[in-house]
Amino acid sequence: MTNMADVMRVGLVGYGNIARGNKIAIEKYPDMNLSWIVSRDPVRVKKEVNDVQIFSMDDLESLVTSHPVDVAILCGGSKKDLPVQGPLCAKLFNTVDSFDTHKHIPPYIDQKLQKQMAGYFSDMNSAALATGHLCAISLGWDPGIFTAIKVMAESFLPGAVAYCFYGLNAEGGVSQGHSDAARKQEGVLDARSYTHAKSKTIERVRKEKNPILTPGDMHWREVFVVPALGADKKRIAYNIKNDREYYKDYNTIVRFISEEEMKKNHSEMPHDGLVIVVGETSPGKRAMMEFKLQLDSNPEFTGHTMTSYARAVCKKYRQGERGALRSCLDFTNAEISPLDYNSLVRKI
Amino acid sequence: MTNMADVMRVGLVGYGNIARGNKIAIEKYPDMNLSWIVSRDPVRVKKEVNDVQIFSMDDLESLVTSHPVDVAILCGGSKKDLPVQGPLCAKLFNTVDSFDTHKHIPPYIDQKLQKQMAGYFSDMNSAALATGHLCAISLGWDPGIFTAIKVMAESFLPGAVAYCFYGLNAEGGVSQGHSDAARKQEGVLDARSYTHAKSKTIERVRKEKNPILTPGDMHWREVFVVPALGADKKRIAYNIKNDREYYKDYNTIVRFISEEEMKKNHSEMPHDGLVIVVGETSPGKRAMMEFKLQLDSNPEFTGHTMTSYARAVCKKYRQGERGALRSCLDFTNAEISPLDYNSLVRKI
Repeated sequence: MTNMADVMRVGLVGYGNIARGNKIAIEKYPDMNLSWIVSRDPVRVKKEVNDVQIFSMDDLESLVTSHPVDVAILCGGSKKDLPVQGPLCAKLFNTVDSFDTHKHIPPYIDQKLQKQMAGYFSDMNSAALATGHLCAISLGWDPGIFTAIKVMAESFLPGAVAYCFYGLNAEGGVSQGHSDAARKQEGVLDARSYTHAKSKTIERVRKEKNPILTPGDMHWREVFVVPALGADKKRIAYNIKNDREYYKDYNTIVRFISEEEMKKNHSEMPHDGLVIVVGETSPGKRAMMEFKLQLDSNPEFTGHTMTSYARAVCKKYRQGERGALRSCLDFTNAEISPLDYNSLVRKI
Repeated sequence: MTNMADVMRVGLVGYGNIARGNKIAIEKYPDMNLSWIVSRDPVRVKKEVNDVQIFSMDDLESLVTSHPVDVAILCGGSKKDLPVQGPLCAKLFNTVDSFDTHKHIPPYIDQKLQKQMAGYFSDMNSAALATGHLCAISLGWDPGIFTAIKVMAESFLPGAVAYCFYGLNAEGGVSQGHSDAARKQEGVLDARSYTHAKSKTIERVRKEKNPILTPGDMHWREVFVVPALGADKKRIAYNIKNDREYYKDYNTIVRFISEEEMKKNHSEMPHDGLVIVVGETSPGKRAMMEFKLQLDSNPEFTGHTMTSYARAVCKKYRQGERGALRSCLDFTNAEISPLDYNSLVRKI
């Protein structure tokens, strides 16, 4: 039984596939309530959603007082949305997001600007510190759950290295981050990016002792693109393949298709992934951990993980935690869970 | 670089296979130091270990002042050792153990005594509260890592049920808890208990929607026993098969062997396990999580997990947490890890 006063009020910022996944998840949990959705295009969202209040991005600041929430879940993409929306929202709300450009989380060098950047962790941390909010980043399944498994496994087996593979099946897996990146290239109407694991490399990791592998040794990529009328396909393919953040490290095939074909064959968003950690507890005594995730709908599942971590943010905030940035490194399983502590003790 | 003043001082209570695993792990981590080992039979341990101070169980209390440690890792078995040693040590030290009788962790009915029992969680909690120590229970891999995976996965997929299988290979997996239980039966000199997963049931779990299964649907057990001279084998087999805590729920085969055969064929302690959680993010959209562990040496790996959680206990205690009982429900990945926070951020 959830006391109504304890029900966590949640807002969604952005309304694409990941937000839809969050909405489904929030509706399943009796301890949460979806207060509002904010979108750049409220008219579009109102056509789809009629059981939640919809506001425009311009309303964000006023919502803080008019419709306060315990946490805002930021559902934008990592390439263009979150770098702006993240720090902005962190000043207004407690937040959770699924920022997934791994190498832009710690400090990094921006290749285009040839400039040292603070990184998303630091940017969000500054914003959270400035206003006392509790914000949590990168809480999809990778980064997110996979990070948790990697850090745990590497802690238990010092010296072992965690390897992550995606797209284990022949069809590969749709990567939202990479699709998003391709979609934002000039002349691209729509794009769907599939990651393919190299199965021979998976076997190497299982058998060898922490082999040294490049990203390109482990995966290749396949991008289906709907070009705009009259767009320069050669240029699009070149731009995607040379996108330093998302594609340059891989052998990438770009295939141009029609809008109809995209709808017919690429509207599902399955994905899968595997974390493998192999180590020795003493010389000759091997220990192997594998975590596999197989998803019919990647964005729906990502929405479910974000919503679970949004609960954890609320719990920590209610316990008095303020002005800090968190990630999957910092939450306990009890905080993530919708169950009360006594029920959890029965699961130990 | 670890500052010497920060190095965590660890004690081991008991010195069997799990303690050996902890010793190996502690020696690998630069942030930990093994201060002492306490044993019921210090003479035996001194023959094996010459690089650590060995004390007798009678010295426990005096060690609190003469050789203080940040945490004591309790390496005894769950059937007879920990129910006594746990609460005793929790009054003297911060502790970590691998208590693994799942159903005795929350309150339970003792079948023999026909009496309501508080359970190990409550017993240890009282002891920790009484003296302000920070104690953590059940931190092997099951309970422990498997619990963490189960609670996480069930949180992400409300309504889904986590299933755990052990002994996936034809040989099965050695269960320390069950071996220990069989070994303590009258007339048993030595025993090794193998768990076998029923592979058809694993397939059912992957395909069906959370089928209802009894423990006996999922596993069967095989116990190799070295009987004492003149022992009543029929009685031993009966007692093992009817052990309510460990065996009664399963089809169990007891095989009597010689001491030589035990040494030759059953001295290794491999084990494996699989957690499967299958749910739907929306109707018809399946999500499946699987976590697999394959270990050449179960006790060595268990020692590694306990040592990692001992680090987490030290970190929490140093942050000011006092008088509380913890389990895998309550630790963050950053607390478990030997890495500093900046290095961890690079792993997100």
